[in-house]
Amino acid sequence: MPVAVETVSSVRSFGGEQAVLRHASEVTGTDMTFSVFVPDHAEGAMLPVVWYLSGLTCTQANVTEKGEFRRACAELGLIFVAPDTSPRGEDVPDDADGAYDFGLGAGFYVDATQEPFAQHYRMWSYVTEELPAIIGDCFPADMTRQSIMGHSMGGHGALTIGLTLPERFKAISAFAPIVAPSQVLWGQKALGGYLGDDRAAWRAHDAVALIEDGARVPELLVDQGEADNFLAEQLKPQLLAEACAKAGIDLTLRMQPGYDHSYYFISTFMEDHLRWHAARLTR
Amino acid sequence: MPVAVETVSSVRSFGGEQAVLRHASEVTGTDMTFSVFVPDHAEGAMLPVVWYLSGLTCTQANVTEKGEFRRACAELGLIFVAPDTSPRGEDVPDDADGAYDFGLGAGFYVDATQEPFAQHYRMWSYVTEELPAIIGDCFPADMTRQSIMGHSMGGHGALTIGLTLPERFKAISAFAPIVAPSQVLWGQKALGGYLGDDRAAWRAHDAVALIEDGARVPELLVDQGEADNFLAEQLKPQLLAEACAKAGIDLTLRMQPGYDHSYYFISTFMEDHLRWHAARLTR
Repeated sequence: MPVAVETVSSVRSFGGEQAVLRHASEVTGTDMTFSVFVPDHAEGAMLPVVWYLSGLTCTQANVTEKGEFRRACAELGLIFVAPDTSPRGEDVPDDADGAYDFGLGAGFYVDATQEPFAQHYRMWSYVTEELPAIIGDCFPADMTRQSIMGHSMGGHGALTIGLTLPERFKAISAFAPIVAPSQVLWGQKALGGYLGDDRAAWRAHDAVALIEDGARVPELLVDQGEADNFLAEQLKPQLLAEACAKAGIDLTLRMQPGYDHSYYFISTFMEDHLRWHAARLTR
Repeated sequence: MPVAVETVSSVRSFGGEQAVLRHASEVTGTDMTFSVFVPDHAEGAMLPVVWYLSGLTCTQANVTEKGEFRRACAELGLIFVAPDTSPRGEDVPDDADGAYDFGLGAGFYVDATQEPFAQHYRMWSYVTEELPAIIGDCFPADMTRQSIMGHSMGGHGALTIGLTLPERFKAISAFAPIVAPSQVLWGQKALGGYLGDDRAAWRAHDAVALIEDGARVPELLVDQGEADNFLAEQLKPQLLAEACAKAGIDLTLRMQPGYDHSYYFISTFMEDHLRWHAARLTR
């Protein structure tokens, strides 16, 4: 591990090593924490990398503890990377009212342009540039074989990053993603707060708008619980379905009866997503 | 659900229902919380029941969130029950110094005889009598097919309860159990505090002593991490191996290189244990 990346913990699990790491980020100007699972592998082997972006209020810990991804990653030979969801620290500005849906734990995977957020809230650059460089340097990661998934706000991140960098990501999937932040309250608050009132600037951070504006990937996989409290007001997967239909993107949208928005839902379908990713990472 | 048992939450996961429930316990004189996973099943079907007893500091929530048992339980058709580890409430006495290894979160699955603990700390009777009656009443549980497992203090509970009630439990296994509490500091503090200084009374709550005194089961399964910080001082699985060898009990003791005492260890081997239990529950 380079000196600048500190191992917070590393434990054996499912025939691999589950580590939590911390480093001083040049991009966010804060310490950043992330987790990485590396399955046992042949000496010299380079493994594909699956990125998992988490939802509102989460840190890297939620999926690391509750995501049930290690068994499948060990079987399939996948490195699993989970970043935090925002910069953190005493001098990092939060939501004015301390709300859960903006500020700390709610970086929305954008580079903020608005004050006082522009200095630290640079999660787009962190997740697409700085952290990939660290992963490539520190782990037996084949950076020519990456894929991305996420949950809720992190599903938004996975879709927008994947649609923007289609050459990089061989597979893109999401659990209960925010597909059109410009059209829902969570997204309007976040994109307005970080990017300002000019809605043209929002389109690069809205999966449906990106597709409308010409972004193309061959296929997407989305699971959505039908008992998800946020389905009707904040998630609206039908907007993604309509955009994909028009654009000729092969979207597999699976509505899951009875499932909610929690890790009890995510963990249930995690293995399916990882197998779908693995098939595309090893073609 | 009978009126006396309140559903705190119930969520869909892995093709089943993961519920957390609460009831006023006559045995402990407190409210008690537990979790139950019930896989989908044919109407009228009665499913075997696996009991999971948790370790020091835990509630039912730890294994419910981190145990990774639902996938295998759904496949194998097993109900999975996780009780709390002690009575709780404002009038429940705790360790005098608030230590983690006695009192709240540390009931050690005994009926205390010593004051001020005797009134509420009756986890033996709770886990072997009151809660099984509730499970039998409220769920599609075949109470003629039960098995028991546990971790650390809960491994102690699973071994002592299983050895005491061998007709009830078709399979007994443990993750990093306290096998001989009379011989280690955790157990000496707990058994002394709950049962008093007469060590004769401790033998019914010490797996190794129970076997020395004639308790017999056909077989046991134990997984133990070799990197477990508590291995040498508190767990001492070799004492169980010696007792089983003398008694003719077929102990499978698997020392797992690199694994620690956490749920990263437990979740890794949970599926193995559940398959081992299922094979014995469906004979």
